[in-house]
Amino acid sequence: MKRADLGRRGNYGALFRNGTMDFLAGWLLGCSQLGGLSPGALLHTFARITDGDPRSWVDAFARAADATTARAEAASDPVVAAGAWLAATTAERAALMLQDPRTPNAEAARARAAEAFEAFLRSSGVPLEPWAIPFAGESLPGYVSTDLTRTRPLVVVVGGGDTSAEDLWFLGGGAFIEAGYAVLLVDLPGQGSTPADGLHFGPATLDGFWAVLDAVRGRGFGGDIVLCGWSGGGFFTTKAVEASRPSDRIVALVASTPIHDIGSMFERAMPGLARRAPRGVLAAAVTASSRFNPVLAASLAKYDWQFGPLGIAGALEAYASMTAVDLTKVDLPVLALVGDGEDAELHRQAADVVAAGRPSSRLITFDHASGASAHCQLGNLSLALAEATGWLATVAPASGDP
Amino acid sequence: MKRADLGRRGNYGALFRNGTMDFLAGWLLGCSQLGGLSPGALLHTFARITDGDPRSWVDAFARAADATTARAEAASDPVVAAGAWLAATTAERAALMLQDPRTPNAEAARARAAEAFEAFLRSSGVPLEPWAIPFAGESLPGYVSTDLTRTRPLVVVVGGGDTSAEDLWFLGGGAFIEAGYAVLLVDLPGQGSTPADGLHFGPATLDGFWAVLDAVRGRGFGGDIVLCGWSGGGFFTTKAVEASRPSDRIVALVASTPIHDIGSMFERAMPGLARRAPRGVLAAAVTASSRFNPVLAASLAKYDWQFGPLGIAGALEAYASMTAVDLTKVDLPVLALVGDGEDAELHRQAADVVAAGRPSSRLITFDHASGASAHCQLGNLSLALAEATGWLATVAPASGDP
Repeated sequence: MKRADLGRRGNYGALFRNGTMDFLAGWLLGCSQLGGLSPGALLHTFARITDGDPRSWVDAFARAADATTARAEAASDPVVAAGAWLAATTAERAALMLQDPRTPNAEAARARAAEAFEAFLRSSGVPLEPWAIPFAGESLPGYVSTDLTRTRPLVVVVGGGDTSAEDLWFLGGGAFIEAGYAVLLVDLPGQGSTPADGLHFGPATLDGFWAVLDAVRGRGFGGDIVLCGWSGGGFFTTKAVEASRPSDRIVALVASTPIHDIGSMFERAMPGLARRAPRGVLAAAVTASSRFNPVLAASLAKYDWQFGPLGIAGALEAYASMTAVDLTKVDLPVLALVGDGEDAELHRQAADVVAAGRPSSRLITFDHASGASAHCQLGNLSLALAEATGWLATVAPASGDP
Repeated sequence: MKRADLGRRGNYGALFRNGTMDFLAGWLLGCSQLGGLSPGALLHTFARITDGDPRSWVDAFARAADATTARAEAASDPVVAAGAWLAATTAERAALMLQDPRTPNAEAARARAAEAFEAFLRSSGVPLEPWAIPFAGESLPGYVSTDLTRTRPLVVVVGGGDTSAEDLWFLGGGAFIEAGYAVLLVDLPGQGSTPADGLHFGPATLDGFWAVLDAVRGRGFGGDIVLCGWSGGGFFTTKAVEASRPSDRIVALVASTPIHDIGSMFERAMPGLARRAPRGVLAAAVTASSRFNPVLAASLAKYDWQFGPLGIAGALEAYASMTAVDLTKVDLPVLALVGDGEDAELHRQAADVVAAGRPSSRLITFDHASGASAHCQLGNLSLALAEATGWLATVAPASGDP
């Protein structure tokens, strides 16, 4: 009785029958390993949601956000306050997952998520500060280590179509800091709140990447850079490796999963949406699906907003025409993290990029029993991040020594 | 459509319709905040379980235990190995939750859980070692800090009817070590594997408590002792405070929840089971319930084993006749942790004990939105333990300085 999801992302079917909702709920529970909304707070919230009804999801998480914010503001103990602020961040972001991003409510929720995350940083004393990186007359929101040093590699963490810079805390931000690295968590055009500023997925996303790397140098950082990409970020980072200049000093790539041919990925991994007559059919599908699967419709509407004037349908066409990454230019160590629950096309492309990388490159496949088999390994991020930091210590150690 | 549970423990209803199963599943997800089986591994396992069928639960977790053990044995990275061993511990313990404890399979699972936990300690380098404390010709299984010092308080963590010493890692073991305390995690008679050695809940449980405290002194520890009790451990620790000798140097009590009148607690908080004509009806109910609720029957059969020759029915009668704790003898700071999802009788007794304690005593009530409202705060242990260590720092600081 599972309903269509956006692709094969490896949901569990234990929480909701609606495939998208089940995947998102599993994502949130996965993050709870590393802080934010606790399992109990999530189960309490899930119990208030009507399966397949996005409005009930948004309402339930808005209530969770209000409650956690109130708890954070009332907390006297800094550890308790920090935990509650991170939970508030997660709750605001969770509500946004299935909310129309064009509304004033969504705009306010995005602002509250960023404010809650900054309050988390202040309460916890984590050495990370907000950084708005200028780009195309607007700015890219990010968080950067307050203690950048020349000798310590900087890990630039980039997400995908569902993430914001705040979410990247769970996708390596916290783990890499704990392992001794400097980090930059950043939204490229199309991600987080940037579509509200007219920045969308497409060529601008990669332009943004170069602006970010230049800004890092402008801030005085002269050390090595590691790229870490999740979901769509697996494409942006692989593409950035291909086109990088020696002065960028990109010394390693960690991706879940590295993608070298985005057109083929969209065509093969999202067959129902993209393969059959892209533009017209997809646009129609968005409308039609709102009748039988409003959760899927809400997801698609969000992607539509992120892709800008062309919408998701036009953007998929544009991606399909992009040339694949020249794998001979992937001349560095690559760590690919892939889950057994993910599409075969992602496995194939990840293996290609690893084979192209230097000999220390590795592909780690997570089986279902590990809990890390879903997209972005979100059912066992602790394991995925332990593998990532363990591998990174061998190719770009945090001490800065080879 | 929720089915009867053993009492009001505050389950969520998001995972299983069977009340006991839903509570236990929420418990396991709650533990995942602190390591062990990841949310993804749990959701994968839950998806294999037939709602209300204890055999499917046992089978699914036995498979999870096999898979995590294989992963632990294959891991080269010590962090990955440690995580997998703790997951294997949790999986073995989870299978035992609804398994007939008298079978050779259960005996072997208990042994494997202990072995996996010891492998976790070795891989992780956590300064904790196994300790079999002699008692009544048998021994009480425990884990104690390898670095006991005179000046640093020792937190003795005691669980309830559903825990073993390994489970206590999640119930303060890890958190107190991280906060700088020495810890002792121990099974009293009736807990963990002790019923297999003829040790049962009842007067022997408290006798065991004194044997443990004497053994701590025999090991050369001369410092202050903090008691931390969960579930039934909230009664054992409160009772131990009442009867403690000055030489025991018990300086604080943390309990979720402190219980001073066990007879009243059983009578009021488990009305369907205990209030109406205790012995005969309860014994009959165990048999009858196996027909309409085999999960509840499996739980009751486990308790029956833990209570020994009298069985759970006779034991409840025995407890009902026990005199309540003399609250004038509770002359120390008390921290009570209580969830809004728990029975009113637990709230009432916790408030009584806190009122009897020294002025620095506190009662913290967790609401549903916090996620910590269930029994033992297992939906947000991070929050409960942050409150506990924050409070403990004010009454018995880890430095040993007042």
